[in-house]
Amino acid sequence: MKRNLLLTPGPTQVPPQLCAALGKPIIHHRTPQFQDNIKQAVEGLKEVYQTKNDVYILTSSGSGAMEAAVVNLISEGDTVIAVDGGKFGERWVELCETYKAKTVVYKVEWGKAPTAQEIKRLLAQNPQTKAVFVTLAETSTGVTPNVKAIGEVVKDTKAVLVVDAVSGLAVQEIKTDEWYCDVVVAASHKGLMLSPGLAFVSASAKAIGFMNQATTPRYYFDLRECKKAMEKVDTPFTPAIGILIALVDSLAMIKKDGLQNMFTRYALLAKATRAGCRAIGLSLFPDESCATNVLTAVNVPSGIDGEKLTKTMRDAYGITFAGGQDKLKGKVIRMAHMGALDEYDILTGLACLEKVLHQMGHQFELGAALAAAQKVLNQK
Amino acid sequence: MKRNLLLTPGPTQVPPQLCAALGKPIIHHRTPQFQDNIKQAVEGLKEVYQTKNDVYILTSSGSGAMEAAVVNLISEGDTVIAVDGGKFGERWVELCETYKAKTVVYKVEWGKAPTAQEIKRLLAQNPQTKAVFVTLAETSTGVTPNVKAIGEVVKDTKAVLVVDAVSGLAVQEIKTDEWYCDVVVAASHKGLMLSPGLAFVSASAKAIGFMNQATTPRYYFDLRECKKAMEKVDTPFTPAIGILIALVDSLAMIKKDGLQNMFTRYALLAKATRAGCRAIGLSLFPDESCATNVLTAVNVPSGIDGEKLTKTMRDAYGITFAGGQDKLKGKVIRMAHMGALDEYDILTGLACLEKVLHQMGHQFELGAALAAAQKVLNQK
Repeated sequence: MKRNLLLTPGPTQVPPQLCAALGKPIIHHRTPQFQDNIKQAVEGLKEVYQTKNDVYILTSSGSGAMEAAVVNLISEGDTVIAVDGGKFGERWVELCETYKAKTVVYKVEWGKAPTAQEIKRLLAQNPQTKAVFVTLAETSTGVTPNVKAIGEVVKDTKAVLVVDAVSGLAVQEIKTDEWYCDVVVAASHKGLMLSPGLAFVSASAKAIGFMNQATTPRYYFDLRECKKAMEKVDTPFTPAIGILIALVDSLAMIKKDGLQNMFTRYALLAKATRAGCRAIGLSLFPDESCATNVLTAVNVPSGIDGEKLTKTMRDAYGITFAGGQDKLKGKVIRMAHMGALDEYDILTGLACLEKVLHQMGHQFELGAALAAAQKVLNQK
Repeated sequence: MKRNLLLTPGPTQVPPQLCAALGKPIIHHRTPQFQDNIKQAVEGLKEVYQTKNDVYILTSSGSGAMEAAVVNLISEGDTVIAVDGGKFGERWVELCETYKAKTVVYKVEWGKAPTAQEIKRLLAQNPQTKAVFVTLAETSTGVTPNVKAIGEVVKDTKAVLVVDAVSGLAVQEIKTDEWYCDVVVAASHKGLMLSPGLAFVSASAKAIGFMNQATTPRYYFDLRECKKAMEKVDTPFTPAIGILIALVDSLAMIKKDGLQNMFTRYALLAKATRAGCRAIGLSLFPDESCATNVLTAVNVPSGIDGEKLTKTMRDAYGITFAGGQDKLKGKVIRMAHMGALDEYDILTGLACLEKVLHQMGHQFELGAALAAAQKVLNQK
């Protein structure tokens, strides 16, 4: 009876009531019954997105929705600015280059945030820029930029602002409309607590204008077809029906919990985790000022093999943290605060982290992480 | 307690044990535990495909896998032949034209099958042809072509044969290797009895050669990346984990049942359905010689509104048939024989069809369809 606790930044824990919803019988997608599900899903998503814009539903991973954003906004040779401060920023760059955009790459040191000022400078230098691509929660490094400030900078230019909120949506604030985010992409298996397989793309009027002009060939991810279908409460292709049915329940849970309460809860979990990690000598990887509450990335103490640490936690004790990616492999560990997690899950994660670090010979007082986290969790 | 019986050609009925599998807890996809699932899924798929070729797993609808076939095989300006004898043939044409192939459209009258001879002639006329696109089970019309004969014709040319087996796989025979099918696309929500969200693409050595040469930009559907990932028992992007876990169970059920037994069963269900329909004056829409066992499309009797017929069956009695598409709207009804259906489901479908036709004033002897079907089902 080993525990199976996912503290990974996606997929996230699917709570039992959503597991049950994922196991509901299938209904046909071209029926009034399923149209009710589409309607409720779109309404609920708009609340989570904090938007009045269209939100389209795709059957794909989050990366499919990222591709949809690129191929629908950009024509060959268009200038774009892509922020690259981690694995998911890198994905924007790869997508833009694959579809032959003239890609101005704004390289950001891993662990630091891109700034609105630098984006302003790049936009001034490249006034023909069609789109600026950013990441709300860069899970490879644990960084979130000031998207609101970036929105203020982009809104008065010709460009649209495209935000990868795959890991951030429903975990940390994103005010799609208020922050002038023209396109926001997200997916089912992060803050929305479901199995992967559905992805979402919002589009402002400005973005829809671009969609209608872009000449990049597209078919499966053609958002013009999504828009047409959505107007008839339909999808262009057979959607991931089972996940969409469960999404209605997930969105109802989120509504009941209250989005702001959730953000507050994740912020508290992040703060407690960081206090716990610090108490046993693990320092935060990103700059504190730009750390996202979506996950905590901490440096592995010198002399400890980070890969062995997460592998032992997972294989011996059933508690899954994420390791570092690419140049951070073995050097950081990452613990998510998203989806169906509460303070006891965080304490469980820290307890297991203590256990294995202790076994591996790291010197600290057993229980110190738990005590530090517990103090934060119970502050007035 | 209205029945919820799907006799539609996708999505199909998900049997309770697979509903339960779809509700299993999520595990992380980059773990040895999930790699076991990938391994078993790929092995099982190869058995159903009857192939030793690679089979790649995509997170998308079947149409996503069709797009993957096109963008990975074809470069702008390449000549292709696409067979168009229904809605899904049309989709091949649209995809090829979207990605700027010089598309030779082999138009086939709805209800008739394309012939190997005509494809041979078109190949001789267009010797530079890179690919021939066909549909194993054209569900809009109920037609299946002789794919084996087409394979014989294509194999000695420069072209690859690409088969849309989305609706056919695990329902009617397709011998991927023996019939020289270079690329075969399929999906989770037809013969495999699962929720939509996963799709599959097989690729022969010849097709892999094409994949490595094609210059069409692609990212999410890049099969070169699928191949690289598959060699490490991984997927390039987060897959629809929940559906993949359930797929292992679905493939085990199919293996236990025996593929040939399943083909025999579906053929019997099709034969019984047709006898039942004939007994109450409903004639088969496609030519009998090329009718697929995947579904039965029959003409709606004159004076009966086909759309009202299927709507009443669904909304009043919970039994869902498919209506006609496009020019067949209201003129045919379609009843699938795929996935988790047995003889009692077919009798249930026919009973409801009799009930509503009777209510709508069609003249026939009540029970005649049931009796005729029952005789076929119990022949020695």
